[in-house]
Amino acid sequence: MSFNTFGKIFRFTTWGESHGPAIGCVIDGCPPNIPISEIDIQKDMDKRRPGQSKFTTQRKESDKVTILSGVFEGKTTGTPISIIIYNEDKKSRDYESIKNKFRPGHADYTYFKKYGIRDFRGGGRQSARETACRVAAGAVAKIVLKKTIGKKFNIVGAVTQLGLMSCDKLNWKNSEIRKNPFFCPDKKSVKLWEKYLLAVRKAGSSCGAVIELRASGIPVGLGAPIYSKLDTDIAAALMSINAVKGVNIGTGMNAAFLSGEENSDEIRKSSGKIKFKTNHAGGILGGISSGQDIVASFAVKPTSSILTSRETINKKGKNTKISVKGRHDPCVGIRAVPIGEAMISCVILDHLLMHRAQCS
Amino acid sequence: MSFNTFGKIFRFTTWGESHGPAIGCVIDGCPPNIPISEIDIQKDMDKRRPGQSKFTTQRKESDKVTILSGVFEGKTTGTPISIIIYNEDKKSRDYESIKNKFRPGHADYTYFKKYGIRDFRGGGRQSARETACRVAAGAVAKIVLKKTIGKKFNIVGAVTQLGLMSCDKLNWKNSEIRKNPFFCPDKKSVKLWEKYLLAVRKAGSSCGAVIELRASGIPVGLGAPIYSKLDTDIAAALMSINAVKGVNIGTGMNAAFLSGEENSDEIRKSSGKIKFKTNHAGGILGGISSGQDIVASFAVKPTSSILTSRETINKKGKNTKISVKGRHDPCVGIRAVPIGEAMISCVILDHLLMHRAQCS
Amino acid sequence: MSFNTFGKIFRFTTWGESHGPAIGCVIDGCPPNIPISEIDIQKDMDKRRPGQSKFTTQRKESDKVTILSGVFEGKTTGTPISIIIYNEDKKSRDYESIKNKFRPGHADYTYFKKYGIRDFRGGGRQSARETACRVAAGAVAKIVLKKTIGKKFNIVGAVTQLGLMSCDKLNWKNSEIRKNPFFCPDKKSVKLWEKYLLAVRKAGSSCGAVIELRASGIPVGLGAPIYSKLDTDIAAALMSINAVKGVNIGTGMNAAFLSGEENSDEIRKSSGKIKFKTNHAGGILGGISSGQDIVASFAVKPTSSILTSRETINKKGKNTKISVKGRHDPCVGIRAVPIGEAMISCVILDHLLMHRAQCS
Amino acid sequence: MSFNTFGKIFRFTTWGESHGPAIGCVIDGCPPNIPISEIDIQKDMDKRRPGQSKFTTQRKESDKVTILSGVFEGKTTGTPISIIIYNEDKKSRDYESIKNKFRPGHADYTYFKKYGIRDFRGGGRQSARETACRVAAGAVAKIVLKKTIGKKFNIVGAVTQLGLMSCDKLNWKNSEIRKNPFFCPDKKSVKLWEKYLLAVRKAGSSCGAVIELRASGIPVGLGAPIYSKLDTDIAAALMSINAVKGVNIGTGMNAAFLSGEENSDEIRKSSGKIKFKTNHAGGILGGISSGQDIVASFAVKPTSSILTSRETINKKGKNTKISVKGRHDPCVGIRAVPIGEAMISCVILDHLLMHRAQCS
Repeated sequence: MSFNTFGKIFRFTTWGESHGPAIGCVIDGCPPNIPISEIDIQKDMDKRRPGQSKFTTQRKESDKVTILSGVFEGKTTGTPISIIIYNEDKKSRDYESIKNKFRPGHADYTYFKKYGIRDFRGGGRQSARETACRVAAGAVAKIVLKKTIGKKFNIVGAVTQLGLMSCDKLNWKNSEIRKNPFFCPDKKSVKLWEKYLLAVRKAGSSCGAVIELRASGIPVGLGAPIYSKLDTDIAAALMSINAVKGVNIGTGMNAAFLSGEENSDEIRKSSGKIKFKTNHAGGILGGISSGQDIVASFAVKPTSSILTSRETINKKGKNTKISVKGRHDPCVGIRAVPIGEAMISCVILDHLLMHRAQCS
Repeated sequence: MSFNTFGKIFRFTTWGESHGPAIGCVIDGCPPNIPISEIDIQKDMDKRRPGQSKFTTQRKESDKVTILSGVFEGKTTGTPISIIIYNEDKKSRDYESIKNKFRPGHADYTYFKKYGIRDFRGGGRQSARETACRVAAGAVAKIVLKKTIGKKFNIVGAVTQLGLMSCDKLNWKNSEIRKNPFFCPDKKSVKLWEKYLLAVRKAGSSCGAVIELRASGIPVGLGAPIYSKLDTDIAAALMSINAVKGVNIGTGMNAAFLSGEENSDEIRKSSGKIKFKTNHAGGILGGISSGQDIVASFAVKPTSSILTSRETINKKGKNTKISVKGRHDPCVGIRAVPIGEAMISCVILDHLLMHRAQCS
Repeated sequence: MSFNTFGKIFRFTTWGESHGPAIGCVIDGCPPNIPISEIDIQKDMDKRRPGQSKFTTQRKESDKVTILSGVFEGKTTGTPISIIIYNEDKKSRDYESIKNKFRPGHADYTYFKKYGIRDFRGGGRQSARETACRVAAGAVAKIVLKKTIGKKFNIVGAVTQLGLMSCDKLNWKNSEIRKNPFFCPDKKSVKLWEKYLLAVRKAGSSCGAVIELRASGIPVGLGAPIYSKLDTDIAAALMSINAVKGVNIGTGMNAAFLSGEENSDEIRKSSGKIKFKTNHAGGILGGISSGQDIVASFAVKPTSSILTSRETINKKGKNTKISVKGRHDPCVGIRAVPIGEAMISCVILDHLLMHRAQCS
Repeated sequence: MSFNTFGKIFRFTTWGESHGPAIGCVIDGCPPNIPISEIDIQKDMDKRRPGQSKFTTQRKESDKVTILSGVFEGKTTGTPISIIIYNEDKKSRDYESIKNKFRPGHADYTYFKKYGIRDFRGGGRQSARETACRVAAGAVAKIVLKKTIGKKFNIVGAVTQLGLMSCDKLNWKNSEIRKNPFFCPDKKSVKLWEKYLLAVRKAGSSCGAVIELRASGIPVGLGAPIYSKLDTDIAAALMSINAVKGVNIGTGMNAAFLSGEENSDEIRKSSGKIKFKTNHAGGILGGISSGQDIVASFAVKPTSSILTSRETINKKGKNTKISVKGRHDPCVGIRAVPIGEAMISCVILDHLLMHRAQCS
C-alpha cells in the first residue's frame, strides 16, 4: 500500500521524482467558485524555491506552476485541480558515485529494501523536491480559508531554533520573518545566525532547526475526535515532511515539566469575548480548536549530505565510505517554513469542511 | 465528520462514554486463523486498569473484556472482532458541580462549542476511559505481530520523565518496568520518584510525564510514503492519546541541536549482518523502517483536574471558579504506557499488512 | 483487508455472526442534537424481523435494539452510536450436517477458501442476519434526513416482481405496501402472489424477487463525481446486500432498448417550478441528484436453501449431496425491502453531508 | 466532498476537463518492479480512441499517453505513476448555443445546481473524455494482473445488445470481438447491427447498449465482505461510467425469474479440479470470487445528444428548446467496452492486493 494522498475532504495527491520530467499534485474536494490563479499559488512557491540565498541548495528551479484543470474562467469548479511543475535543473549532476551506495541518514537503504528498486537520481521520490507540491496545495487551501473565514485568518511560520542558536520568541514579529534568509522572527538574532550558519557551511557540516507555526482566526470547534483530532492531524502533517523528527502542540514536550496549575489555561469572559489567560494547549483541547491561536512546532534534523566522509555499505552489502560533493545545504530546516505553513493550512481547511459536514 | 476509526488495513473503531453502560471496539481486518482469547487481551487490559496504586485514579473498574464476534473455536475468522467492556464504577459521582462549568485545560468547552451538546458525566466521550479500547485492540495487534514476526518481536514502553524528575536511560532494564508503579525502567530512580509524586499529590497538584516506546524485531521496509510514513502514523497514533502534546521519533526535537555528522547513523556490515552505529533516526528513514529498533516518545501534560481553584466560565458565559474534589490523579501520564504500547503495535501491524499488499 | 464499514461521512460498521452472542453496529459521523430513541429504531427493525408470516423464515428473533453510546438525554451527541442486538433463537439448530459441506449457491465454499476457517453455524458472518444492523443504521439515517430535509422527504420500497409474477406498477400505492406480507404495492396482485408463493413453498423450492425503491423530496445537487456518484454509491449499497445480483437506476438495464428521444427527460419550468416530463434517469444525472424522485431497483436471487437434494463437495474435496431441512424461506427477497430502504437512506444522508462539506 | 479517486490499495485519481489543456491520472499503490511502458498502455488507449469508425464520435484525438513518474528504467518503482494525455481536438467547436442551456439527459443542469459554476465546453468534467484515464489505469492493472496471476488470466468485454438488436451469446468468440466496429462477439450479428445503426444515425437518433465482461483465471478467495464485496465494487465501478444505468452480476436482474434449483450452481470435483455445473452467480458467492469466470454486464443509455429538438430550460430558468448539431454519436455504448474492461481489471487487482494484505 502506497499513500501519496493527504487529507479527508480537502485532499491532495502528489506525484513525481526529483529528476523526472515533472512533479505535480491533484487537489480534490476544493469548494467551488473560489477565485484562484497561478499567480496566487506562485507567491507561495517562491518562498520555498531553492537557490535564493547562499544558505540553501543551489539547485536552480523556477518552480513555475501550471494549472491543468479544475479552474474555469478564474474560479474553481469543484472538480480536481491538477497542478504541474516541470523539473528544470536536473541534467547537471552525476549520480554514478551514489548509485550503488546508501547515504547514511537518507532513505536510500530503506527505499531499496522496501521496493527492490529505486530511482537514485537526486533521491527520486524521497527528495524534498516533493514538498513543492505541498506548497502548491497549501496555497490553494489558504485562499479558500481566507475566502471562508475572512481577514482575521492568518498563518505564519518562522525558524525559532537554528542548530545551537535559539532566538528570543518575545521579540517575535511577523513582519521581520521575510526580511532575512532564515525566516527568523527576531531581528536581533539574525546577525548571529548568519555567522553561525556560515561557519557550519564552511566546516562542510550541517545543522538542524525548529520551526514554529501560528494560525490565528481559527474558529472554535474544528477537530474530529477521536482519531482525527486536529492535533493528531497536524502531528501527522508535520511529521510527514522530510527530515522532521519531532512535533509539539503548544507547550509540547515541555508540558511534562509543568504543574497542573501552570498548564491549565484559565478562561475568562471580558468585554463580551471569551479569553484564555495562557495558551499552553496551543489552541487545541480534546483535539478540537478552542478559538485561541493554534501553535505547533517541529524539529528538522540536519541533513546528512555533508562533506565529511561517512561509513556505509553498498548495494551488494559491502562496507564502503561516502561523502557528498558539490551542492551542499547547511540547514534544510530553513526551507521547511513554507512547507509547514502549507501543511497546517491544508489540515485546518480539511477540518473546517469536516466540521461543516457533521455540524452545520 | 467524526473519526472514531484508527488504521487502514488493521482498523479498529471505538465507541462509548465514561459513564454510559459500556465501552467497546470493533476490530476489522485482522488476519484469520490467529489463536486469540479473552485471557490474552485481559493481560494487557490489567496493565492499564485504574485503581492499582495510590498514584493513579481510584475509579474501580475490572475492565473485563468480552469478545462478541470474530473468533470461532479459539481462532480469528477474518471477520470483525467486537469487544465490549462494561462500565462498573459509574454511579458514585455527583456531576452537578461541573455540569454547567467548563474545566480549564479540559475538552469541556470545545466539545460543547463543537456539538452544542455534551455528556458531562465523567467527561463522556473525551474521557481517558476510551483508551481501554485502544489497549484491547493493541493486545490483538501484538498477538498477530508475534505470530507473524516471531519471538524476536517485542514492544515495551516506560516512563522516562516524571514531572521534573528524569531517570537515567543508560540504566534502562525492561525487567524493571513492571516492578514499580511508575513503569520506570531505571531501578535507581524509583524511590525518588515515589517521594516526588507523593509530594505532588499532597499539594493537590499534578505533573506531566514523558513515555518512551521501543519496538524491536521490526523488519526493514515497513512504511507507506509519502503521507502514511511509518513515523507519520506513529506521530498521529500517539498524538491522538488524551493529554499528549508532543511526539518524538528517535532523537526527536533534539535533532535540531545535532550536527550532520552526529545525526547520520553510519551503516556497517559485520558477521553477515547490517548494523547501524547509532540510532538517532529511531529506526525510521524516509518514513520506512530500517530494521533498527523503532524508538518513539511522547509527552503527557499534567491533568488540570487539581484541587486548587481555577478561573473559568459557565455554559452561560459567566465568569466563575472551579476546583475538583474527590478522586485526583497526580500523574495521568503513568497509565499512558500501555496505551502507547497498544497504539504503536497497531501502527506496526497495519504497516506490515500494507507492505504485504503492495510488495509481497 | 476486510471491509465492514459503509459510508464516507455518515459511516456505520457492523459486526457479529448469526449464532454468536449478539450482532451490532457502530454509527459514526451522525450529526449532533438529533432526537433519537430505541423506539424509533425498533419500528424499522420490526419490518425486517423474521417469523412474521408463513412466507419468511421462522427463526424467532425479537431483534430488540439497545443503544449503548452516542445518545445523551434523548439526543445524539455527535459521538459514535453503538447499537447491540442479542441473538436469541440460536440454540435449536443442528449444524453437523452442513459443517463439512459447502451448500451450492451459498458463500460456504468461498469463505472457507478465503479465510481457511469459517463459522458454519447459521452461515456465521455471511448470514442475512447481518442486515438487521443495516436496518438499525438506516433508521438513524432516516431520522436525520427527516429532521434536515423536512416532511417532503420520504423513502419507500416495495416488491414489484415475485419470481415469475409481476405487479402493475401503475397501481402502486404506498399505503398498500404494508398491508400484505409481500410488500406488494399493487392491491390486485396480492391474492395471486399468495397462491404462487404457497405453491413454491410446497414444492420445497424458492423464487427470486425485484425490489423497487423510491426516494422523494431529495434536493438537487447531491452526488460526488466521478467515483462516488450518487448512483455509484446506491449501486454499491444495494449490491452489498446478501443475494442481490442486479441493480437498476431508473429505467436501468432497459435503457439499452430506448431511443435517445425516449430516454432524455425533457425539462420544463411551470408555475415557478422545474419539472421533468419523464424520469428515465431515476432522478440522477451525471451522478448528481436532479430533484426528481430517486428510483432504484434490485434483484434478489432465490435462496439455494431448498428441500431438493443438490450436488456439492465437502471440506475434503469429495463429491457429496446436500439438502436443507427444517426452516425454509421460499422468497428471501421479501425481507430485502426494509434493507434496501435502509441502505438507500444511508447513501442519501452520506451524500447530503458530503455536499454540505464541499458546497455549503 | 469530491471523489475523483477509485480503489483502496491500487488507487487511481483522474483529473481534467474535455476542453482543458490535458487530462490525466495518478496511479498509487502499484506493486514495484513490474515492467511497464507507454506502448503497453497505448494499446488499450487505442481501443477506446474516438474517430475510428463512422459509428462513434468524430472527435480527433490521438490519446497519446505520457508517463511522468513512477517508472524507472522501464519498471514500476512503487511510487505514484502519473499519466498525462493532452487534449488536441478542442478548438473547433462553438459552445455558445449550449453555454446557457441545459441539455436534457445530460449532467449540465445538475452540475450547475451543485457547484453554481460549470465548464460547459464539451461537457467539461462530465464528459466521457474522462474515461480515457480509466483505460490508462486499467491497462496498468492488467499488466500487473498478468504478471501476478499468469497466462490463464484474461479479461474481455463485448457488446451483446445494441439498441433493439441482440446477438446470440452461444456464438460468442473472443477472436471476433475486435474484428468489427461494434465489439460484437457473434459474427453473424454484425451485418444486421451495421444496418440498424446506420438507420439510427440517419434518423439523427441514438440507441443504448449492453456490454458483457468476462474475467477468467481469477483465483478463488478475492472479495472483502461485507461492504467491499467483489460484486459490490464491480457494481460501483461499472455504474460510475458515464451513461450506465444498470449492472448485472452473472444472471443479474433475471435471477428474479429463476427457481432455487435452477439458480444454485452445483459443485463437482473431477480430475482433481473443482468445477461448477453452471455459473448463474457470475463467479462470485457471498462477495468472494469462487474461481469461476467472473461475469458482469451493464447497460449504457442512448446519448441524448440527438438531432431532434428537445424541450429544456436555460440558466435563467426560462423554457427553451435545444438540438445538437455537428458531431453525433449514435451509440456511445460501443466505446464503453474498453472502459468496462479497464474498470473490472482495476477492481480485481485491488481485491488481489487486499486479499494478500489480510490473508497471505
